[in-house]
Amino acid sequence: MFFASDNTSGVPVQVLDALARANEGYAPGYGADDAMTRVTALIREVFEAPEAAVYLVATGTAANALALATHVRPWQTIYCSRVAHIEEDECAAPEFYAGGAKLTLLEETDGKIAPETLARVLNDAPQGVHHVQRGIVSLTNLTERGARYSAAEIAQLAAIARAHGLPVHLDGARFANALVAEGCTPAEMSWRAGVDVLSFGGTKNGLLGVEAVILFDPAKAWEFELRRKRGGHLFSKHRYLSAQMEAYLTDGLWLDLARQANAMGARLHAGVEGAGARLVHPRGGNMLFVEMTRDQHAALRAAGAVYYDWPAPHPASGPGDQPLQARLVTSWSTTEADIGRFVETMQAAR
Amino acid sequence: MFFASDNTSGVPVQVLDALARANEGYAPGYGADDAMTRVTALIREVFEAPEAAVYLVATGTAANALALATHVRPWQTIYCSRVAHIEEDECAAPEFYAGGAKLTLLEETDGKIAPETLARVLNDAPQGVHHVQRGIVSLTNLTERGARYSAAEIAQLAAIARAHGLPVHLDGARFANALVAEGCTPAEMSWRAGVDVLSFGGTKNGLLGVEAVILFDPAKAWEFELRRKRGGHLFSKHRYLSAQMEAYLTDGLWLDLARQANAMGARLHAGVEGAGARLVHPRGGNMLFVEMTRDQHAALRAAGAVYYDWPAPHPASGPGDQPLQARLVTSWSTTEADIGRFVETMQAAR
Amino acid sequence: MFFASDNTSGVPVQVLDALARANEGYAPGYGADDAMTRVTALIREVFEAPEAAVYLVATGTAANALALATHVRPWQTIYCSRVAHIEEDECAAPEFYAGGAKLTLLEETDGKIAPETLARVLNDAPQGVHHVQRGIVSLTNLTERGARYSAAEIAQLAAIARAHGLPVHLDGARFANALVAEGCTPAEMSWRAGVDVLSFGGTKNGLLGVEAVILFDPAKAWEFELRRKRGGHLFSKHRYLSAQMEAYLTDGLWLDLARQANAMGARLHAGVEGAGARLVHPRGGNMLFVEMTRDQHAALRAAGAVYYDWPAPHPASGPGDQPLQARLVTSWSTTEADIGRFVETMQAAR
Amino acid sequence: MFFASDNTSGVPVQVLDALARANEGYAPGYGADDAMTRVTALIREVFEAPEAAVYLVATGTAANALALATHVRPWQTIYCSRVAHIEEDECAAPEFYAGGAKLTLLEETDGKIAPETLARVLNDAPQGVHHVQRGIVSLTNLTERGARYSAAEIAQLAAIARAHGLPVHLDGARFANALVAEGCTPAEMSWRAGVDVLSFGGTKNGLLGVEAVILFDPAKAWEFELRRKRGGHLFSKHRYLSAQMEAYLTDGLWLDLARQANAMGARLHAGVEGAGARLVHPRGGNMLFVEMTRDQHAALRAAGAVYYDWPAPHPASGPGDQPLQARLVTSWSTTEADIGRFVETMQAAR
Repeated sequence: MFFASDNTSGVPVQVLDALARANEGYAPGYGADDAMTRVTALIREVFEAPEAAVYLVATGTAANALALATHVRPWQTIYCSRVAHIEEDECAAPEFYAGGAKLTLLEETDGKIAPETLARVLNDAPQGVHHVQRGIVSLTNLTERGARYSAAEIAQLAAIARAHGLPVHLDGARFANALVAEGCTPAEMSWRAGVDVLSFGGTKNGLLGVEAVILFDPAKAWEFELRRKRGGHLFSKHRYLSAQMEAYLTDGLWLDLARQANAMGARLHAGVEGAGARLVHPRGGNMLFVEMTRDQHAALRAAGAVYYDWPAPHPASGPGDQPLQARLVTSWSTTEADIGRFVETMQAAR
Repeated sequence: MFFASDNTSGVPVQVLDALARANEGYAPGYGADDAMTRVTALIREVFEAPEAAVYLVATGTAANALALATHVRPWQTIYCSRVAHIEEDECAAPEFYAGGAKLTLLEETDGKIAPETLARVLNDAPQGVHHVQRGIVSLTNLTERGARYSAAEIAQLAAIARAHGLPVHLDGARFANALVAEGCTPAEMSWRAGVDVLSFGGTKNGLLGVEAVILFDPAKAWEFELRRKRGGHLFSKHRYLSAQMEAYLTDGLWLDLARQANAMGARLHAGVEGAGARLVHPRGGNMLFVEMTRDQHAALRAAGAVYYDWPAPHPASGPGDQPLQARLVTSWSTTEADIGRFVETMQAAR
Repeated sequence: MFFASDNTSGVPVQVLDALARANEGYAPGYGADDAMTRVTALIREVFEAPEAAVYLVATGTAANALALATHVRPWQTIYCSRVAHIEEDECAAPEFYAGGAKLTLLEETDGKIAPETLARVLNDAPQGVHHVQRGIVSLTNLTERGARYSAAEIAQLAAIARAHGLPVHLDGARFANALVAEGCTPAEMSWRAGVDVLSFGGTKNGLLGVEAVILFDPAKAWEFELRRKRGGHLFSKHRYLSAQMEAYLTDGLWLDLARQANAMGARLHAGVEGAGARLVHPRGGNMLFVEMTRDQHAALRAAGAVYYDWPAPHPASGPGDQPLQARLVTSWSTTEADIGRFVETMQAAR
Repeated sequence: MFFASDNTSGVPVQVLDALARANEGYAPGYGADDAMTRVTALIREVFEAPEAAVYLVATGTAANALALATHVRPWQTIYCSRVAHIEEDECAAPEFYAGGAKLTLLEETDGKIAPETLARVLNDAPQGVHHVQRGIVSLTNLTERGARYSAAEIAQLAAIARAHGLPVHLDGARFANALVAEGCTPAEMSWRAGVDVLSFGGTKNGLLGVEAVILFDPAKAWEFELRRKRGGHLFSKHRYLSAQMEAYLTDGLWLDLARQANAMGARLHAGVEGAGARLVHPRGGNMLFVEMTRDQHAALRAAGAVYYDWPAPHPASGPGDQPLQARLVTSWSTTEADIGRFVETMQAAR
């Protein structure tokens, strides 16, 4: 009963097989491998973006920090939600990569920024020499609270950014989960909606550790390459990254994995509600924030369930202070059996 | 009728005279001048801090950024109020000097942080490897909204910081104004209250451009010196900075200047209230935020009064959107005549 | 005939098998996996360093930059040879990670720094506030010119650094190759020789992409962890890094791989000398710089040999300007057949 | 007998008078003062550069670091001579301001870079993703060894830079001294020779602490302004900087001061040669490197002469190790009497 994160899962056999195939013979390093040529072609096709520049890195923090740094100057600010991963979970990596840029935190609901909020903040931002300048808008889909932007909602926010001359970044660590839930095309949820640069997640959805950064406008491609190298994120044996991403994109594997994760999320959703618990945020895909009783928490822990209390309790908190929320994440490898056991345990402790 | 800022005033004759005297003959550069030795002794005496390390720079932003950078690491965060000068008016200088550190913004009233706010935020800060770490607490006195912390209030906040092992910085751009209003000693409002490093303002209170950074614990003195040099803030002809600060501290000039500025602030305070306006924040010294009618604004502008609308209106705002607040700052050189004219104009437009 | 770099080789079957085993079930992320506990124990045992802190990253540049940044402040300098990888091949990653620190380049022979050179430079370095301060000494073994330091030579250099209070970093991208050639223990070539922090290479010697950073003094372990996270180098599915390193260290696989690479280097060495070519630098292990005739170059290229001309010719160079050196690197997967063909081709073109 | 540096001198009466005049009344801060408008006009006129953007800062390190940072990206390198002030005397300020950029040190003679050296280094610089990219060329005139580039020599170097698409920075801390010695116009020694950005020194030539940064192409003016603010180098009471620079440029004061300093340099030059000493580098203006006997050194010190031994002796050096060079700098305030005494003392100790 592992619901701590989708990144506690392993990878499907297709990905391991691809690594084994990639292992044969010699290959030039640093992204000059043939498989990377194929990956670029695949992503351009999948995203209907024949000009896009495509780069692979191994962590989501690297993808986000490099993508953002390439689009802001050190005296600019990155607009994001108050609960954005780039604010809460990256130990100031964006600030580091962007040379001391700032993050401006926007009010959010379910991790989503409302258009009026963005419009107001951008309008009100003073632009004199004493102030950090407006830099970029960063959204996350699925959000960090498990909710989902529609392509239209992203387009609405991006239009506001564009009206101020700002580019838009999308943290797509769970892009696939959002996409299959929304039922739109990759292009519709990215560049057609106004996204300039996308962190296209692979790791949480079944890879060992690969994310693509997609620059829909390739003008900054060379800068990105230099930043990636300088950040230590250019792999010598790059073929092993390429192989993972190629397998991911072949025969729609990435979409199948996300559909499976979402289906398990839906099943868990129904189960916990049946057990009398309620979701704190609307479920956009495979991540659920569930409020339950202390007894249910205790029973689940006793039964071996692994998940995060939410928000993370302070080390000094006593048992009475324990929060009542659980963050539950399903993945491509979540089983119906595990969900069944989880829900039964909740039911029994109701 | 110049009330835009205390930094639009000139300097008293004693300071110009000191520059002229300092100009005689040759002097070693970079802080090795004899006058700097005297300045250090004077500050140690005034602050009853015989071990303190004392350095001069020429701008408040330099003082704050260097003071903070010396006390945080790049993966830590600086706690300050949402309206702190270091957040709103320094174009991310602290982030730059601190190598990409973050600012965490705390709710404030009148620019003051409440002890319970600080305690809660520090308690709740997650401290795992994914999160920025707690670094330093920065307070401002007078605050950016013209209010004042008492020494006891600073001590209370500093004790909370200390309980988490954090140092405390005080942005004292208007330290003198706060001090004479509070009627305590420099020591009481700084190190005795738990302040580790003080930006001790001179420019706003009658110097051409000198601020002292006082490290009450000299352990980081050498690091500060290197950071100052590296930031381009070590003056070759340092004697001209020393001379200003020496004149400032001699015969209590700095206190007299602040008393005069505050007295003018009090006079203006009484005047604007007499003219039917009200202060938005309690007046701590020489800075007033006054809400008045549009007619009064118009009359004052017509009469040649210079001050900031508050908050600064957006360039695109129409006349009907004009805010009703004025930020008025008095200084050592403010005259009763100017205040008289200002108040009369307000009265007439009432 | 792939001799471009050891990182154009694949990985041995044991490593792929380890990945497959690691793939089973769920595992906590970010280095909390059980395999990492075993890796730490293995490295401590192999290095006879029971207190050492051990971290995994995926690239050599990340290992070097993070190791160095953790041991210098931004106003300090890193002493290294003029041809060091950190100077020539990392796009200023050390400067980036160290917040703007400098590299001071030392004269070298075969990539090795002479003790008298290091002593003189450290002695002569001005230490006033106008100057960058001495920070750390970084050595590389095998060197970037394929030569080798003995443990005694490293100890001699480290003693000089120590006399100035400076720590020592060893870039061990080819540590295994140096070690088996030298015939000493890992401890002798690292902490017993005075090395404080080691970039312990795995990728060039048979892994997909894993390097360990070993801090023999764990005092800076937490700082390193924060820097790694902030650099985007903390892997969520960390188990796949641990698995590679565990396989590498199990049953001496890493030593066997290095011995094989070196043996192939020796065979190639003998072959090219037999074909009338000479080595420009003494061969320390598996990397050879060979001066040959233009005809030999042409024949090898025609036969499909892949290697770097050395130094890399300028894009604008005409054919007559082509350098006469070749950089040849053997690896664990180099075959006798390939060497045979290479040497025969050289012989025929003699 | 103060020959330690031109920055140990005071300022002429015209500058103090200008400060006193500037002190009257109120003035808007941060460069919006009327005097700055006049300074910009004056500099544009003096340099025949009606489009130039002009900014004032208070130290030479700030001028250089800000000028350079505005023209390089963090993954680029700054080409300068091995003895450049930006390398030797600024504690890595350029690296700090430029976000971790590198300095590439070129061989020099008398502080001057030979055209063939620059051409070779730029030609040979590898430009792949693993390498820092070519950024800017920085020259110094007068050089740090007291020599002088002619306008034609600067033009020759700048043409080489331009051929690689690189901008050129001139560190003109002693620009006036070079200019009057060379007898050309400010335009000829700057933008007409291909200089893009000039650190136009005032402090060493008679100001309290003001340098102008002149961007001959104003395209990066706004970026410069933000960098200046962010560096803490934007003065609130900016009028005192403007006043100094205005006085400096009025009635050719800056040229008179430099002519006087150079004339004293020539007189000292003749004197020390008459006393049997020789200059180590050709004298370009007001800075001399003189090799003399130990007896002469001892006699001068005994007579109270103040100057730097050169190179600066190591603290641990014994008397026998003392270098035989002296660095002697004259200024606008150097007297014939002081030179007379200095030379007589040398003569007597011959």
